[in-house]
Amino acid sequence: MTRSWVPGADESLFGLDNLPYGVFSRQGEAPRVGVRVGDHVLDLAPVLDDEVFAAPSLNPFLARGRTAWQETRARLQALLAAEAGGNRAAVEPHLVPLDQVTMHLPVEVADYVDFYASLEHASNLGRIFRPDEEPLKPNWRHLPVGYHGRAGTVVVSGTPIRRPCGQRMPGPSFGPSVRLDIEAELGYVVGAPTRLGERAGAFDDHVFGVTLVNDWSARDIQAWEYVPLGPFLGKSFATSISPWITPLEALRPARVAGREQDPAPMDYLRRDAPWGLDLTLRVELNGETISTPSYRNMYWTPDQMLAHMTVNGASLRTGDLFASGTISSEGAFGSLIEVTWNGAEPIKLADGTTRSFLEDGDTVTISAVAPGGIALGAVTGRITPAT
Amino acid sequence: MTRSWVPGADESLFGLDNLPYGVFSRQGEAPRVGVRVGDHVLDLAPVLDDEVFAAPSLNPFLARGRTAWQETRARLQALLAAEAGGNRAAVEPHLVPLDQVTMHLPVEVADYVDFYASLEHASNLGRIFRPDEEPLKPNWRHLPVGYHGRAGTVVVSGTPIRRPCGQRMPGPSFGPSVRLDIEAELGYVVGAPTRLGERAGAFDDHVFGVTLVNDWSARDIQAWEYVPLGPFLGKSFATSISPWITPLEALRPARVAGREQDPAPMDYLRRDAPWGLDLTLRVELNGETISTPSYRNMYWTPDQMLAHMTVNGASLRTGDLFASGTISSEGAFGSLIEVTWNGAEPIKLADGTTRSFLEDGDTVTISAVAPGGIALGAVTGRITPAT
Repeated sequence: MTRSWVPGADESLFGLDNLPYGVFSRQGEAPRVGVRVGDHVLDLAPVLDDEVFAAPSLNPFLARGRTAWQETRARLQALLAAEAGGNRAAVEPHLVPLDQVTMHLPVEVADYVDFYASLEHASNLGRIFRPDEEPLKPNWRHLPVGYHGRAGTVVVSGTPIRRPCGQRMPGPSFGPSVRLDIEAELGYVVGAPTRLGERAGAFDDHVFGVTLVNDWSARDIQAWEYVPLGPFLGKSFATSISPWITPLEALRPARVAGREQDPAPMDYLRRDAPWGLDLTLRVELNGETISTPSYRNMYWTPDQMLAHMTVNGASLRTGDLFASGTISSEGAFGSLIEVTWNGAEPIKLADGTTRSFLEDGDTVTISAVAPGGIALGAVTGRITPAT
Repeated sequence: MTRSWVPGADESLFGLDNLPYGVFSRQGEAPRVGVRVGDHVLDLAPVLDDEVFAAPSLNPFLARGRTAWQETRARLQALLAAEAGGNRAAVEPHLVPLDQVTMHLPVEVADYVDFYASLEHASNLGRIFRPDEEPLKPNWRHLPVGYHGRAGTVVVSGTPIRRPCGQRMPGPSFGPSVRLDIEAELGYVVGAPTRLGERAGAFDDHVFGVTLVNDWSARDIQAWEYVPLGPFLGKSFATSISPWITPLEALRPARVAGREQDPAPMDYLRRDAPWGLDLTLRVELNGETISTPSYRNMYWTPDQMLAHMTVNGASLRTGDLFASGTISSEGAFGSLIEVTWNGAEPIKLADGTTRSFLEDGDTVTISAVAPGGIALGAVTGRITPAT
């Protein structure tokens, strides 16, 4: 690990090998781009003398493409390194303690796609929802199943989540969801676009980085509405993401081959590089850890998702976000409907209460760590009552 | 009808009671906002002395809200009226013949939602895809079923449509779609946004106008991928819209009560005003009319779609587009899969060829007329071979 002169950085999980990007503001000032170092955010526009970082989202920087991303990262690592020497005096005034800033949505989300890439999650939901059938649909092992979500309701971590109303099962009856759930996911942020009619090229030429996602889900609304066109209002009320986008570069030590696939995927889905990721997530409910699913064994890897999403010539835009779907591993699940097995086995909390699904006032926080002493920025949200 | 001094306007279906908005450019110039009058487009920025119309999309104007939309329309009608008097000399230099301009995507599409609002279409597809079951799913008469589509591949009329590749039924096999279809739809463009957690108010406070939509569909890709999360690559390669957005105001004479609904819809879906529309569509394949479906009898009205889409607190953004789903009426269908009954009854064309689905080189044009001598701008597209 390259050591840094920034106080606390080397001892944190946000040292020089990490350096995630976000959008922050100081009181009374406009949002702008920063990089996290330890418990500080570095204000990039003055340090790098580049107006692209004075924008209120990462999009203009992401649009510059991979070479620019690499150059910027290398420059920041040099400026922040212990041996930075004379640079330190110029940089230090632009380090702002995290507790003095407000974090904003880091990316102006173009299209949002959610996949369904965990074999355990898809199997569990099949068993719960369709107990008399094969848990996996016939297509599941042939392609990464996915669908478009609502980009306009992707919100930054910390945004209160209002309990949605709608038509619910059983019934249908109308009212606030009583089966409000989470989905712990990893999201991939597209930087470099493609043109309509073209397929995407190499994964790391297009994808800038990753973020943690909580795809809030109202199971009782979803169960009634989802045939035949898929989830809609059961998901579209809010999707939270971490304020930090971790560059792919930082996750290099976390890369693993990815799970074996049977049947062998079609040519356009063939893996050319190890794009599995050895990440361990932690799901906390009101501060108590309720699950620690691993991403390592996800069935479909992100390069396969990207290849699939564009094989029909659909174009990519800067700011596209595509997520993995719920991350469940053997015995460690990324949704309450799995943890409590559809409410049959409620969670017991330390305060003596139990949970099948979320109550008003509950706070859920999802975090993740990777080998090499890297953490992703956490995503958190608190449930507020329906109106 | 108010008469206009613009040559040919009164005799066209684009007179002063119509005045749809679009984005145009003259050779070598930047795209900007114009209004169609007869076979001319009026360059609004200089005429109204307002920079909002120098933007390359309608979004900044749409964001101003209903009062501004009404004022602008009234001003334009006065400037273009036969009795405009001295105004004519100032306006006339900014009228450009349509054949001297290129039309662009009129709206920067935020989220794109597609509904499934035609009872005939939903029933027909049920009969074709699931012949052994009830054609309608249990939820269909209780709520307007819908899903999110890909906003980034909404393209303007005239954009070539490349035949998509993908995993297809039967099989799965990989290759170009051999069941490429159209869906003739009406799209609604949102102007005034809402905040997260709020429901939308009155329909005409939020929705600016309508456009024709061709939701190109690869039936063989869709059939394999769509369970359980809905259509994805079978639709996401392209969705074409007319270059013209017709203000709701222009469709006042077309408004009808809307079809009776059984069971009575829940309170939040109660109709408070007649938002059915008496429109007749025309679908042409290589210049031959193959169907003339009516919008009049659509089951779910657009105010119900808007109420449904936001009942869970999902916010609206300026530029959101939501479409009706395929418009089929009794005996007149808005998709080839219905017209040819899944290929069992191919269309015979005047050149002696037949069609079950689209061939490379085919051109499809969808147009529509409303009472009061109003036409919507047509949407057209030609199929180019897969790569």
